[in-house]
Amino acid sequence: MDYVLALDLGGTKIYSALVGSGDQIIKKDVRPTEAAQGKEKVIANILASLEAVIPSRSRQDGLIAGIGVGAPGPLDSRSGTIFFAPNLEWQNVNLKEILENALGYPVFLENDANLAALGEYLYGAGQGHEDMVFITVSTGVGGGLVLGGEIYSGAFGGAGEIGHLVVAPDGPLCPCGNRGCLEAVASGRALKRKALDLIAAGKGRRILELAGGEPEGVEAPVITRVGHAGDPEARALLAEAGRYLGLAIGNIANLLNPSLFIIGGGVARGAGKLLLGPARAEAELRVFPALRDFLKIVPGALRGRAGVLGAAAFARRKLRFNHREELANGHKAQDQS
Amino acid sequence: MDYVLALDLGGTKIYSALVGSGDQIIKKDVRPTEAAQGKEKVIANILASLEAVIPSRSRQDGLIAGIGVGAPGPLDSRSGTIFFAPNLEWQNVNLKEILENALGYPVFLENDANLAALGEYLYGAGQGHEDMVFITVSTGVGGGLVLGGEIYSGAFGGAGEIGHLVVAPDGPLCPCGNRGCLEAVASGRALKRKALDLIAAGKGRRILELAGGEPEGVEAPVITRVGHAGDPEARALLAEAGRYLGLAIGNIANLLNPSLFIIGGGVARGAGKLLLGPARAEAELRVFPALRDFLKIVPGALRGRAGVLGAAAFARRKLRFNHREELANGHKAQDQS
Repeated sequence: MDYVLALDLGGTKIYSALVGSGDQIIKKDVRPTEAAQGKEKVIANILASLEAVIPSRSRQDGLIAGIGVGAPGPLDSRSGTIFFAPNLEWQNVNLKEILENALGYPVFLENDANLAALGEYLYGAGQGHEDMVFITVSTGVGGGLVLGGEIYSGAFGGAGEIGHLVVAPDGPLCPCGNRGCLEAVASGRALKRKALDLIAAGKGRRILELAGGEPEGVEAPVITRVGHAGDPEARALLAEAGRYLGLAIGNIANLLNPSLFIIGGGVARGAGKLLLGPARAEAELRVFPALRDFLKIVPGALRGRAGVLGAAAFARRKLRFNHREELANGHKAQDQS
Repeated sequence: MDYVLALDLGGTKIYSALVGSGDQIIKKDVRPTEAAQGKEKVIANILASLEAVIPSRSRQDGLIAGIGVGAPGPLDSRSGTIFFAPNLEWQNVNLKEILENALGYPVFLENDANLAALGEYLYGAGQGHEDMVFITVSTGVGGGLVLGGEIYSGAFGGAGEIGHLVVAPDGPLCPCGNRGCLEAVASGRALKRKALDLIAAGKGRRILELAGGEPEGVEAPVITRVGHAGDPEARALLAEAGRYLGLAIGNIANLLNPSLFIIGGGVARGAGKLLLGPARAEAELRVFPALRDFLKIVPGALRGRAGVLGAAAFARRKLRFNHREELANGHKAQDQS
């Protein structure tokens, strides 16, 4: 086994990479997902993106051992079925089967945030932390758990839905149908909604200015930029989101007592300490006092690469595991003959 | 290895057992902890209780392989130190060392709720559920995680502090110093406090009646009994506690996606469906919709025995592990000679 392909399938963009050993990205391709154009178009884009990083002679040479794929979940890693991906409007899509039939390589599918967690653990901010929690704050909020040095995906593959921890029991509705999910109060989408509420109330003047005077231009990056420039209203929005994030972190710390929390995602990266400062303060307040000394919260180190690097590592782990299983079964078969 | 001793050290009682294979309790001893009389008295009680179940000729015969001990945490299983046990008023007590010095058997210490989780997994309601969560609702609220068929205790041994998940961010103060912990709103102690509030406001007449007309007599068992007799005030108290329990269950389901939740503890057992019904309804409301079908909540099956049976199994697992390590090291030493 020499190289693996890695795919990080997001709601807005597709990131494909040819990966050598470790975190060595040999070639990459990033293009829009075009989710609004439907499932067939998205699959065509995925295939075109992967083809763009496959070396021309690799098929004859057997250079590529398999494909690691990160996709929005929840999904069943064993069968390769994505149960439900609201950002793609997909339900019960067997992406593993589709890609294996189209490309001929074995495909290993996992939740995208779980793979980003694995990437940060192996090559990023989480190195040496066998029990760590990764939270990504971008348009939505996602998460992944590495427990005992392995992705933990629960009994049915659905673990790590950190965006749907309820942090405000009587809070705003979440697209998932519940109230007060972390995603409903601390995501890029939630920040935008709260900024628009401010503007509708005749406030948030500086946010609106940087958005070009148009409410449609109000997005999380605008809010973080105005916050960094010192605007108290933008800072208050980010601090509130940070406190909710900190409450979730405190609760997870009480449940799992990990040695590290890594906060990634575009919104968290843009907001920096305006989000992480209040998150840390609230988490320290909410963690069980005897566990407070263990609490450590750091930003992600891999930026957009966490997902593909985790996907590549996941494929390599699965290939090695399958190889060992084959060897073991081969020996057994020989013993019996 | 023939027998192990098991000890479940609680704030009110000590439960010792001589355990054969599996869940076979050969002899047991239950006596008060007498925590208020100080650490020396508690340790004397522990030793007397263990001595009471040790067969008279076992020392000469080498019949007992070791002792599994469940104690309130958080604690460090490796060193055997209890960091902080508020019900015992203990801080930094190395119980492993104390018992090994006094009795001469190897001692394996774990958090009591973790061991009860292991007991229910191996011999009780959790059989076959490799990823399960145990919650005990008694005077306080505790919890233990079995992930992948093993106790999961986190990076530093502190995992499973389910009683300190924050379910009411602006709720009542918890003895731990935080606000709105599950233990502060859904424990036997919380039920008692709320019933006394009712009585102080001139309500809760039937609860007070069954308590013999004395507010001091109001305890969780009184409230559950009045609730089973149909009293709407008692039922409302239990339903509120149940809803908070359900919110915590929903959040844990979103984070860990286990195949089973087991609810044990005296208060949960006494309240039965008056607590579990509202808990189930709220958990179903709070779980991420795509994970709802996986949600399963059942009562514990082992009653007070979960802790000692888990402690015995834990000791046997550790003894086997240590035995394998010794064998492996023995082989290595031979290879090098």
